[in-house]
Amino acid sequence: MLISMKSGATDNDISGVMNVVQSLGLRAFVSKEDKYTVISVIGSGTKIPSNYFTSLSGVNEVVDQENVYELISKKYRKLSSGLSGNIEITVNNVVIGEDTPVIMAGPCAVESRDQLFRIAGEVKEAGAHILRGGIFKPRSSVHSFQGLGASDRSKAEEALKWLREAGDEFCMPVITEVRGESQVDLVAEYSDILQIGARNMYDQDLLVAVARTKKPVLLKRHFGAGVKEFLNFAEYIAAEGNKNIILCERGIVPVGKGNDFTRYTLDLAAVPAIRTETYLPVIVDPSHSTGRRDMIYSMSCAAVAAGAHGLMIEVHYNPEEALVDGAQAITADELKKVIKACNEISRMVNEENRALN
Amino acid sequence: MLISMKSGATDNDISGVMNVVQSLGLRAFVSKEDKYTVISVIGSGTKIPSNYFTSLSGVNEVVDQENVYELISKKYRKLSSGLSGNIEITVNNVVIGEDTPVIMAGPCAVESRDQLFRIAGEVKEAGAHILRGGIFKPRSSVHSFQGLGASDRSKAEEALKWLREAGDEFCMPVITEVRGESQVDLVAEYSDILQIGARNMYDQDLLVAVARTKKPVLLKRHFGAGVKEFLNFAEYIAAEGNKNIILCERGIVPVGKGNDFTRYTLDLAAVPAIRTETYLPVIVDPSHSTGRRDMIYSMSCAAVAAGAHGLMIEVHYNPEEALVDGAQAITADELKKVIKACNEISRMVNEENRALN
Amino acid sequence: MLISMKSGATDNDISGVMNVVQSLGLRAFVSKEDKYTVISVIGSGTKIPSNYFTSLSGVNEVVDQENVYELISKKYRKLSSGLSGNIEITVNNVVIGEDTPVIMAGPCAVESRDQLFRIAGEVKEAGAHILRGGIFKPRSSVHSFQGLGASDRSKAEEALKWLREAGDEFCMPVITEVRGESQVDLVAEYSDILQIGARNMYDQDLLVAVARTKKPVLLKRHFGAGVKEFLNFAEYIAAEGNKNIILCERGIVPVGKGNDFTRYTLDLAAVPAIRTETYLPVIVDPSHSTGRRDMIYSMSCAAVAAGAHGLMIEVHYNPEEALVDGAQAITADELKKVIKACNEISRMVNEENRALN
Amino acid sequence: MLISMKSGATDNDISGVMNVVQSLGLRAFVSKEDKYTVISVIGSGTKIPSNYFTSLSGVNEVVDQENVYELISKKYRKLSSGLSGNIEITVNNVVIGEDTPVIMAGPCAVESRDQLFRIAGEVKEAGAHILRGGIFKPRSSVHSFQGLGASDRSKAEEALKWLREAGDEFCMPVITEVRGESQVDLVAEYSDILQIGARNMYDQDLLVAVARTKKPVLLKRHFGAGVKEFLNFAEYIAAEGNKNIILCERGIVPVGKGNDFTRYTLDLAAVPAIRTETYLPVIVDPSHSTGRRDMIYSMSCAAVAAGAHGLMIEVHYNPEEALVDGAQAITADELKKVIKACNEISRMVNEENRALN
Repeated sequence: MLISMKSGATDNDISGVMNVVQSLGLRAFVSKEDKYTVISVIGSGTKIPSNYFTSLSGVNEVVDQENVYELISKKYRKLSSGLSGNIEITVNNVVIGEDTPVIMAGPCAVESRDQLFRIAGEVKEAGAHILRGGIFKPRSSVHSFQGLGASDRSKAEEALKWLREAGDEFCMPVITEVRGESQVDLVAEYSDILQIGARNMYDQDLLVAVARTKKPVLLKRHFGAGVKEFLNFAEYIAAEGNKNIILCERGIVPVGKGNDFTRYTLDLAAVPAIRTETYLPVIVDPSHSTGRRDMIYSMSCAAVAAGAHGLMIEVHYNPEEALVDGAQAITADELKKVIKACNEISRMVNEENRALN
Repeated sequence: MLISMKSGATDNDISGVMNVVQSLGLRAFVSKEDKYTVISVIGSGTKIPSNYFTSLSGVNEVVDQENVYELISKKYRKLSSGLSGNIEITVNNVVIGEDTPVIMAGPCAVESRDQLFRIAGEVKEAGAHILRGGIFKPRSSVHSFQGLGASDRSKAEEALKWLREAGDEFCMPVITEVRGESQVDLVAEYSDILQIGARNMYDQDLLVAVARTKKPVLLKRHFGAGVKEFLNFAEYIAAEGNKNIILCERGIVPVGKGNDFTRYTLDLAAVPAIRTETYLPVIVDPSHSTGRRDMIYSMSCAAVAAGAHGLMIEVHYNPEEALVDGAQAITADELKKVIKACNEISRMVNEENRALN
Repeated sequence: MLISMKSGATDNDISGVMNVVQSLGLRAFVSKEDKYTVISVIGSGTKIPSNYFTSLSGVNEVVDQENVYELISKKYRKLSSGLSGNIEITVNNVVIGEDTPVIMAGPCAVESRDQLFRIAGEVKEAGAHILRGGIFKPRSSVHSFQGLGASDRSKAEEALKWLREAGDEFCMPVITEVRGESQVDLVAEYSDILQIGARNMYDQDLLVAVARTKKPVLLKRHFGAGVKEFLNFAEYIAAEGNKNIILCERGIVPVGKGNDFTRYTLDLAAVPAIRTETYLPVIVDPSHSTGRRDMIYSMSCAAVAAGAHGLMIEVHYNPEEALVDGAQAITADELKKVIKACNEISRMVNEENRALN
Repeated sequence: MLISMKSGATDNDISGVMNVVQSLGLRAFVSKEDKYTVISVIGSGTKIPSNYFTSLSGVNEVVDQENVYELISKKYRKLSSGLSGNIEITVNNVVIGEDTPVIMAGPCAVESRDQLFRIAGEVKEAGAHILRGGIFKPRSSVHSFQGLGASDRSKAEEALKWLREAGDEFCMPVITEVRGESQVDLVAEYSDILQIGARNMYDQDLLVAVARTKKPVLLKRHFGAGVKEFLNFAEYIAAEGNKNIILCERGIVPVGKGNDFTRYTLDLAAVPAIRTETYLPVIVDPSHSTGRRDMIYSMSCAAVAAGAHGLMIEVHYNPEEALVDGAQAITADELKKVIKACNEISRMVNEENRALN
């Protein structure tokens, strides 16, 4: 249940509401960042009596919607700010959520300082905005290369420093994955955005831990999750007061027997679905979903045409040599062409969209 | 196994090859339509000895590839015509397989002559190329409206005549679905393209029957089928000597529990996969896959950006009133905007694609 | 909507109900086979006004349930016969639907008269009740062996005669698959039960055609279908007045990436679900679902423990030599052990079940 | 790669092997618990040259199998102990992995000391062997009841003490779920077995953390994971030297559109698959997979018939009142009947199985 306060509501008014919340044995989250204070009352499955709140001093409106992903819903945005549309998340000099697609690019796994700096320079030159590089790699087999973060904390920290330095050198915010609670503080010290990988989407304790760093979080959809489930887990982050959430579609488990042409099924209809339901920006990862270098161009174009606010793409100067997922990496030259096409498509689709409204 | 004959190969040379085929207890399909005759030898799971053929008179090349969808493969096209890329299928005045996306539009179900003619006029004016309209409707429940074809043959024929007349009136080829073998002859009499719906994709006897009409066939992917399975069933049509096959992606079963935001998951990576593997044109149906009117624009744009040669879209002047699937129908005005955006995206993506090659 | 008539209801009473049905533009199916006549009124999606019927002469009860699989529902059975539980379907000397699991066994594909007679004798001796043997084989590839029915009608008829003779020789009813409408009459002439394979479950015209033969139909669940969808398609058969339907669970598409240990996922919870929802007997096919000979024993035991009324198992004297699906065939010796174990489990589970009620 | 040492191999011999391992830049895990020392050499995707090892002093056999779940494979068991079959895991007085199915029962969520003790007494009396009770509950919505562990550490510890005391009072080992790394030490202090829930299966850092406690681990299969993936993640635990792993099948995402009759699809063929591939005991959770009280009996029987070593079942004295998942809880009376039937089926199936071998 969402309670929006009037613009002149006092701290006393808010306390009045919170007293009723507590007397009902409920908990609530007070959001003051925006124009209007919004109190989201969180129940325990049972129906909350909205009439207890409507007549309290300073209360403007009580919205008794279903108790699911209300903190990231369009309705919440309307109540808290009077605005519709999605939010924009600013990370250093980069804005995520505008018309122009934001490009996050870099190596799948950081392999060495040299490899990282070389690729960072190349993707910057190609037009990328944010540098990605995996240090703690989630892998299906304990016997596969687990990233430089696997061996010990000092090695992991060294790699994180490289990432920070490469970002600073080439004026790009950096993003890297956090795979477990014990890595959160370390990664938050060096990375501008904390990425939760698809395999960890359901890991609610990790979501809470990254949310508490107050840094922007990129949450990838699990490959076995419906879009509603995905939004339910994003709500775990928002419930900690951190609304700087970027959602990322990266493919779901394929249908049918045996191996098919792509590793996963990229669900691009998730993009308009998320844009309709929430105010969060949504990006697409064509690299992991297809697992095929030769599909990055067409699926990137398709993602932006579907309304994606950005792309996360794996780049390597020598894809065949990459320690992880080389089959899906493209070169910086190819990235440049992807960016050019996506910028044009985005311009065109957004113009049309504005004309439609 | 594919055997391509030299350009001067005689009928005697072909007979020579066929004699060996028969002596091995195999069957073969001889394709003479193109520049070079190609004989596809069809085994029964066992390995065919290619060396029996290589030295025969008139034989140019023997390609011993896996025995699956070889008649629709790029390799077949190379051998038979020396060409790469996809074929173009011409239906009356419309070419399917060119850069410009072909738009098939019309009502989900033909409800009356008036409804059909009104929508036909509207979609023509909006820029559609081919008129669609369901007469034999596949339905999940025997208790739902089954289309005008349900009641009796004369009623079905009447509706088919309306479709034919509407197509002629507005200069559009027409397409309608054939749901069972017993309808093939009737539908082939009136419709320019025969559509096999997703639920019938696995119905190999029906595929053979429609193939034998020699009319172009639009084959929809079953919602539980991988892309490889889809191509395997398209091969059933090609094996009858009918290569005028248009493939259509229309969404696969969604992942996860319970209902999500779309009826099916539109698998747009199937588009580049099919374009890489086969020479057949591929189109996308955003209506059935999403089941949502408000997603047609974005998913149409995405489909064309992914490389689709066309779209199949359900249109109704009053979607709320439609007897079948009204929730996914758009108006002709909306269709006009979809076509405009898709034409621009197509132009841009194809320019870039040509620059890439 | 179901309307049950009083036990003394006259033909006039029934006509009275039918007149109202027709005046409302609806259709109805009158079932007189059982103790009480039941009229199932079939709408077209719109709500039927039940109050038009309640006060008519001879009407006992009007059940206004959702318009889906009502003809095969427990409620229908209660209304038409006053009974609960499942029906028993008697085919010659065999009863399907009793406690003792019915065993349908035989070769995947009929390969020759000798092969069929040898296997028929062996499975009879092992304790099987019904002889199975595929003549029209549905296959994923046009290039695979399609069964003896593939080549021409006379070859198909010859194989059907062998099946009939083998059944007569060893006193077993026979079952074989019908893959397309054009085969229905031919197969119905020779086979006691008509099987619809998983790939054809959605083929509603075929379902109608087999239903009209009045022979018992075994309907396999499509590997991409939910159980509700499965029941909706069984309703197509019942709507033709043929209630002699045996449902068969044979595995659904597996989850996850790439190949796993079984070909499909056997969904045994479908067994109690079907037994709760309908009065139809339900059997399980452990051969196609697992694709593995070494799992037939354990999955057969599990199926019977879950409440299955029978099993369909592929048997070959030399599995390695079988033309189709040899990897999943067991020998008659192995079948004997499966039957022994399943009989004991069935006895035990049913005793307990009776004690539970 | 697995290297088994001779029975008289010295520490020097082992060091000799390890020196070669290190010189190749690989890591290895030495297992001395069993009859024969086995060294599992863990590569980084590249092929390990087995011939470097075969002639070293003390080396008995080098098995160059694929680098996936080799530490939990049947081959490993053979090399390390000369035994086949599965291991038995003894927890206090209970043995998991014997013929008789082990029953883990208790409330879904611990709600109060009274609730827990009452249910503990009842399930003990009904014949359960191990007491389950959730304190840290993984939930799809942040707005649902998260278990007593949600609020703060002291509340969580209090609930864990109740669980410990209830286990001691009724002579049952206890099992409870660990949802995040930060809870591992706390839970390990009180619980005999650490459970990893389905949602956390992919959380490799959590797997490593629980493995290091040296306590037995029950790992549930993720609902979007193939069985091979499941085994790959179990290997993460074994790679830490902890082989006391109990695998649990609890249902996978259902196929098809919309809601069906069960929450998940229970994949019972996973049981023989796991028993064939590994030496680990495997149990089944019929409660979460079906989500239906009325299916617990039949699916428990089916699970044991399929070869499950045990069951995990949710019990409540008043299922309607349960704070979490009441719809799937059964009463202790019903549990008693389940146990009786499962014991009989197990006896019968195992006798037959022994006769088969």
